[in-house]
Amino acid sequence: MFDIAGYGFTVDRIILDALKEDMPAGDITTDAIFGDDSSVSVSDAVIKAKEDGVICGLGVAERVFELLDGDSLFTCRVKEGEKVRAGDIVADLRGMTSALLKGERTALNLLQRMSGIATMTRAFCEKIDGLPVKLADTRKTTPGLRALEKYAVRVGGGSNHRFCLSDGAMIKDNHIKAAGGITAAVEMVRKQVPHTVKIEVEAGNMEQVREALAAGADIIMLDNMDLKAMKEAVVFIGGRALTEASGNVDENRVRDIAETGVDIISAGKLTHSVKSLDISMKII
Amino acid sequence: MFDIAGYGFTVDRIILDALKEDMPAGDITTDAIFGDDSSVSVSDAVIKAKEDGVICGLGVAERVFELLDGDSLFTCRVKEGEKVRAGDIVADLRGMTSALLKGERTALNLLQRMSGIATMTRAFCEKIDGLPVKLADTRKTTPGLRALEKYAVRVGGGSNHRFCLSDGAMIKDNHIKAAGGITAAVEMVRKQVPHTVKIEVEAGNMEQVREALAAGADIIMLDNMDLKAMKEAVVFIGGRALTEASGNVDENRVRDIAETGVDIISAGKLTHSVKSLDISMKII
Amino acid sequence: MFDIAGYGFTVDRIILDALKEDMPAGDITTDAIFGDDSSVSVSDAVIKAKEDGVICGLGVAERVFELLDGDSLFTCRVKEGEKVRAGDIVADLRGMTSALLKGERTALNLLQRMSGIATMTRAFCEKIDGLPVKLADTRKTTPGLRALEKYAVRVGGGSNHRFCLSDGAMIKDNHIKAAGGITAAVEMVRKQVPHTVKIEVEAGNMEQVREALAAGADIIMLDNMDLKAMKEAVVFIGGRALTEASGNVDENRVRDIAETGVDIISAGKLTHSVKSLDISMKII
Amino acid sequence: MFDIAGYGFTVDRIILDALKEDMPAGDITTDAIFGDDSSVSVSDAVIKAKEDGVICGLGVAERVFELLDGDSLFTCRVKEGEKVRAGDIVADLRGMTSALLKGERTALNLLQRMSGIATMTRAFCEKIDGLPVKLADTRKTTPGLRALEKYAVRVGGGSNHRFCLSDGAMIKDNHIKAAGGITAAVEMVRKQVPHTVKIEVEAGNMEQVREALAAGADIIMLDNMDLKAMKEAVVFIGGRALTEASGNVDENRVRDIAETGVDIISAGKLTHSVKSLDISMKII
Amino acid sequence: MFDIAGYGFTVDRIILDALKEDMPAGDITTDAIFGDDSSVSVSDAVIKAKEDGVICGLGVAERVFELLDGDSLFTCRVKEGEKVRAGDIVADLRGMTSALLKGERTALNLLQRMSGIATMTRAFCEKIDGLPVKLADTRKTTPGLRALEKYAVRVGGGSNHRFCLSDGAMIKDNHIKAAGGITAAVEMVRKQVPHTVKIEVEAGNMEQVREALAAGADIIMLDNMDLKAMKEAVVFIGGRALTEASGNVDENRVRDIAETGVDIISAGKLTHSVKSLDISMKII
Amino acid sequence: MFDIAGYGFTVDRIILDALKEDMPAGDITTDAIFGDDSSVSVSDAVIKAKEDGVICGLGVAERVFELLDGDSLFTCRVKEGEKVRAGDIVADLRGMTSALLKGERTALNLLQRMSGIATMTRAFCEKIDGLPVKLADTRKTTPGLRALEKYAVRVGGGSNHRFCLSDGAMIKDNHIKAAGGITAAVEMVRKQVPHTVKIEVEAGNMEQVREALAAGADIIMLDNMDLKAMKEAVVFIGGRALTEASGNVDENRVRDIAETGVDIISAGKLTHSVKSLDISMKII
Repeated sequence: MFDIAGYGFTVDRIILDALKEDMPAGDITTDAIFGDDSSVSVSDAVIKAKEDGVICGLGVAERVFELLDGDSLFTCRVKEGEKVRAGDIVADLRGMTSALLKGERTALNLLQRMSGIATMTRAFCEKIDGLPVKLADTRKTTPGLRALEKYAVRVGGGSNHRFCLSDGAMIKDNHIKAAGGITAAVEMVRKQVPHTVKIEVEAGNMEQVREALAAGADIIMLDNMDLKAMKEAVVFIGGRALTEASGNVDENRVRDIAETGVDIISAGKLTHSVKSLDISMKII
Repeated sequence: MFDIAGYGFTVDRIILDALKEDMPAGDITTDAIFGDDSSVSVSDAVIKAKEDGVICGLGVAERVFELLDGDSLFTCRVKEGEKVRAGDIVADLRGMTSALLKGERTALNLLQRMSGIATMTRAFCEKIDGLPVKLADTRKTTPGLRALEKYAVRVGGGSNHRFCLSDGAMIKDNHIKAAGGITAAVEMVRKQVPHTVKIEVEAGNMEQVREALAAGADIIMLDNMDLKAMKEAVVFIGGRALTEASGNVDENRVRDIAETGVDIISAGKLTHSVKSLDISMKII
Repeated sequence: MFDIAGYGFTVDRIILDALKEDMPAGDITTDAIFGDDSSVSVSDAVIKAKEDGVICGLGVAERVFELLDGDSLFTCRVKEGEKVRAGDIVADLRGMTSALLKGERTALNLLQRMSGIATMTRAFCEKIDGLPVKLADTRKTTPGLRALEKYAVRVGGGSNHRFCLSDGAMIKDNHIKAAGGITAAVEMVRKQVPHTVKIEVEAGNMEQVREALAAGADIIMLDNMDLKAMKEAVVFIGGRALTEASGNVDENRVRDIAETGVDIISAGKLTHSVKSLDISMKII
Repeated sequence: MFDIAGYGFTVDRIILDALKEDMPAGDITTDAIFGDDSSVSVSDAVIKAKEDGVICGLGVAERVFELLDGDSLFTCRVKEGEKVRAGDIVADLRGMTSALLKGERTALNLLQRMSGIATMTRAFCEKIDGLPVKLADTRKTTPGLRALEKYAVRVGGGSNHRFCLSDGAMIKDNHIKAAGGITAAVEMVRKQVPHTVKIEVEAGNMEQVREALAAGADIIMLDNMDLKAMKEAVVFIGGRALTEASGNVDENRVRDIAETGVDIISAGKLTHSVKSLDISMKII
Repeated sequence: MFDIAGYGFTVDRIILDALKEDMPAGDITTDAIFGDDSSVSVSDAVIKAKEDGVICGLGVAERVFELLDGDSLFTCRVKEGEKVRAGDIVADLRGMTSALLKGERTALNLLQRMSGIATMTRAFCEKIDGLPVKLADTRKTTPGLRALEKYAVRVGGGSNHRFCLSDGAMIKDNHIKAAGGITAAVEMVRKQVPHTVKIEVEAGNMEQVREALAAGADIIMLDNMDLKAMKEAVVFIGGRALTEASGNVDENRVRDIAETGVDIISAGKLTHSVKSLDISMKII
Repeated sequence: MFDIAGYGFTVDRIILDALKEDMPAGDITTDAIFGDDSSVSVSDAVIKAKEDGVICGLGVAERVFELLDGDSLFTCRVKEGEKVRAGDIVADLRGMTSALLKGERTALNLLQRMSGIATMTRAFCEKIDGLPVKLADTRKTTPGLRALEKYAVRVGGGSNHRFCLSDGAMIKDNHIKAAGGITAAVEMVRKQVPHTVKIEVEAGNMEQVREALAAGADIIMLDNMDLKAMKEAVVFIGGRALTEASGNVDENRVRDIAETGVDIISAGKLTHSVKSLDISMKII
């Protein structure tokens, strides 16, 4: 079974659903031209970058064609996570012409999006190069594609935040209000969640930071604080908890934020506002 | 059964899968705080635009909370497709606090993406305002979300291209090569596809335009032609087929392209490079 | 991945569901006899026509056995769409005896139905031989099997109408009433549907034919008209729109209808009242 | 949850899949006309028989509209299994116009097929009226619709054979050959299958009948025997096992077969060659 | 396609769902260590019994690894249903290290449970050795795993009761009450259920036994009767119907019950209170 | 949508699959008796404990009947997690008789298993009462039911270990070997896994404990150590990491283990060797 760094099951499901979405009743053009003897016509194709960026999703693209034509051959010319220039050939492909035509759009839709995420993540990472900070994603991902998008963040050099609501404990305003305070909330959560999970508390000011720390939070999220407040919080916490900066993180501000000394910077933009990397496929 | 302009089945499936992706084993934080008496705590919330844009996906967001809490109330303050300003409240919401917390991210992920698409489409449409041309989407959509993304294009004022490979006939290079020419390809396709489907031929130059027209193409795609060539093709075709401009369509070029007289402009950017509209939810 | 003229995904799903329906907990008879050493016993079988007809679904039948026994061999003696006589052997088959016994009914159920459709379609087509008219199917298909049944119509020599409600625009009485007239309805639909889709209007009399034509309908359905009215409509339309005859089309009337000069004749009977072609499988 | 004589789960799945098949991306015509205010327009409709027959599937048809419009009202004028005449109104229906238009084809496709089966079954049953014999179906059903088709046979007055390979033991030629004789086969099967299941043996001649009876078969299938042989077998068996006649059962032969004294007559024709009962729906 | 005595479809579904449950987003530990070059590292492992018992589920365990690594090799050292001693090596395994680590828990969870059931069943069977009685399971199985659990009972030497509510007729108190007596209930059921199904009636005392027998029940369940009453019932029935003892069957009482002369003893304990057989996997 | 402490989606899926498994084609007995007028007969029932234990799964049992009969009423007499005595009535139930009969087995199968787990967990917890230690479950759960089983452990008073391979980092022998030592393994894992996840290292002796602590493990599993070694390890670690005892934990040893001072004791037995709590349902 196909395995792109552990997500094999998810990847196959995503691809098959995408192909089904694009072909509920075949490809009427291609089927009309190639018909029942479609296996006779075999073609070569190249997948080419049309702008600079970081390639991500080669295994996924390969798998699209493998599912359509078990004998297709997909040969990578670059490695997952490698930088490419406009014009670079990313991979060579050989397979039934009809399979190439049917799989092209699905393969590119996934490859372009994943490369877009890896490219943006890499750009953010380069801004904070040399600083002891991790750039993390969020849950602001595309419904259905979270596994692939979080994988792309890692390929781009970033790090993953919790995968979902089931596997990370994050205490927010409303939890605090309902519990009757940060201390009570942390206690309730610690009592209930697996001991393998760290507890994160969202703090908007120094008072909340102090309470969260006293309550034993493992991670304190500095939520929408200005740089000065963040720096003050980091100094106060002094390594007794991990610190995470969150809110309006963009390419321009990311280095300034990193220099406050926080351990993690999380940026929704990495996945919610993706510009697909321009990549094309050409049958030759 | 829920129906957002005819996509009820698809929408429910997308939402349930998204909720499952985000909660394979519950929301460990919220469950720890609200536990088994979760139905006791009811809250009000507002959904607020944090930047200017066109709202799309209200019915989808409402449905997320309805699926989590059948008694929740979602009251829209703006209409689908309406423009909002940063700060505008888009909808009021009342329901079980735990349902609001669990549904927030999924609802926003969908609402923000759909509004992002509608906003960009509106911007493109305003550029070509007054001209007799349609702005159309492509198949460069997010795997699994095509129905919602194409709906968002319509809400933004755009028009839909074929939904998938099964319901539109588009003859490209490789089809032409395999068939042995445009005329042969059109004939093979016309013979095979339902009579309810128009036949589109991709043409890269005037010679191909002429052949396609002679072969009886219903739509001729002017693929990556420059403005002058497009204008020449439009004049030559003279209404005997629909003309569609395609390739590198962006906000800056779209009016110039429209002025060539083409009937349709298709732009992959509307769906493959979406900037989510900034929208937040706040429990009050 | 298996591909019967582009329907690979659909076909596999149909077969697996059929096998699951027939074996939720194995084949208790065969499992009792062949048990755990079932792979030891290999048999040869023949698939034989027991009445005259047109064979359709060979790839589907082959796939049933392939899914049950990856090493099974299915050798066709006739081609898809070929006419057979009672007694003709259609295919030879070799595989694990238990797989042959378990797959027999599912393979035949599909093969017989598809061949039944192809046979009836061929009979209709022969009636209208030589006339410039297409025989089309409808949406009166078996729930879940539409793709296979429409494929069988094509194999039988017929042509496909729209696949479903999502990919063809057909304006009926109630649409017209709600829109306030044919002209308004056509305009509303043209504004909304993809430009790749033709617009068909159902007309029951000459007045409606005139309105539909004036409104720019691409296809006009002559719904339940008598031969004289149809002929009059065809002459009036004069090639300015495609004409489709619909309503009570059967083998006896089909030639008379064709001679009115309509472009398409659609017949629900091709799929809603199928007589399975008698085909058997015998282990030898 | 919906329950048509115990098949609720299956029925909902079949309907939802059928609606999905017919509307992967909405009903483009109806959505264009009724759009977002589709809930405003409510219509009345009648479902009318256009030929004589036995009605079956009312609950299924009702459920189609209920799934599309939870507030729709479906009022039966006849009872499940009742005979109707051409022109009779079968049911009245009230609901959102768009839901009526979208559900019409799916509801009728199921209702017509089920009524077709019930009608043919009733006709067979009337032929054997007064004789102590049951008319049974087979596994020659439409893949995916077996539950509904077997239900329709019961509504028509027939009886069900085993549902599938998992719940009935039927020993055929190849089982006998592999086991080394009828006696050995029956023993192997009896040892393995649940004690709640009867064991049926296919016999083609008197010698096999004798062996099967001696081996303790609960049911002996008289496979493709002529009338005389069947009568002889029935006399010989003398009530020590149930007898089932099988092979080429049609309306003309069924009474003759019944008069041989067999307990059960099974007829594949009831489900594999169904003529849909002509039923229409009209919005009024 | 994989086939463990006819349950191939079910087995694959169970395994894939189990793997998905255990890896919604990969194995974060293993993926971190082995990463993208996971195919490079290949390991050998042994599966070892850590207590005495009967092995069941080897094919299922093998399939887990096959689905994760198509090239893995699983070599059984014992046969399905064989007794093992603590310390015995059950199978050798070779495959990608990451596949072994990811599949270990799922394979063992299934193998241990199935072996636990087979072990307990064998123990019960040994108690009744030499007596002409069958030990049967019930429907008190684990939701989702019934097919595997009933298979394990057979491997352990037991026999299966009906698989589910659809394939066996069992008349209980409430059916009798609703029908107005045992005789009426048996008649209603016999009229409706397939002729391939035996009819079982639950009887709690001799009066009910007599009524059931007179009504023609094929099987009479002696429900929670004491030994003396059971013996009396068996004598009275005298082979005219199968007798089944049910209620509080455990290892201590099973022989006494068997000696009453009943044909079948059914025991829920075999599947509802399973002690997993201790089996481990060790990479070497 | 139904929500049993956050697992609503999972619970509905499990129940529907269980009902489908038990009724692929209805309940032939109940359908024969109650037929089409099944909604007419309404009954009351009680759910009664037949042995002492801790009740868990009331919401699940209620949901089974709610899915079969939307109007059914399920009234709990005890609370989730409450102790009951043999003979206690757990809940009253009122609904369509046919729904009660069809849902009984599925509801009890789930309720009994969950209560069995909660009962055993409570017994373990009582043994360690007063000590500052948590009793945790493992991944040795029933495939498909992990969410419910881990919920039952919590209801019984226990605590959850990681849910699956995706949401907890556990470094074992083979990871250490492949990484080239504990230190390297911890570094590789820390670099890759989300910062919200704690890192656990399996240690079999003091040397490994020391290395794990030095490498910065958050949790150290004392794997199959004897009591003396565990105590020594706990003292050495001195609160610098959480300590977890694992291996052959049973009711007799659990207090001794707890007294070594470990923070967590994990016991596979809680879920892999469950004795269902004896609970019955009786229609009255």
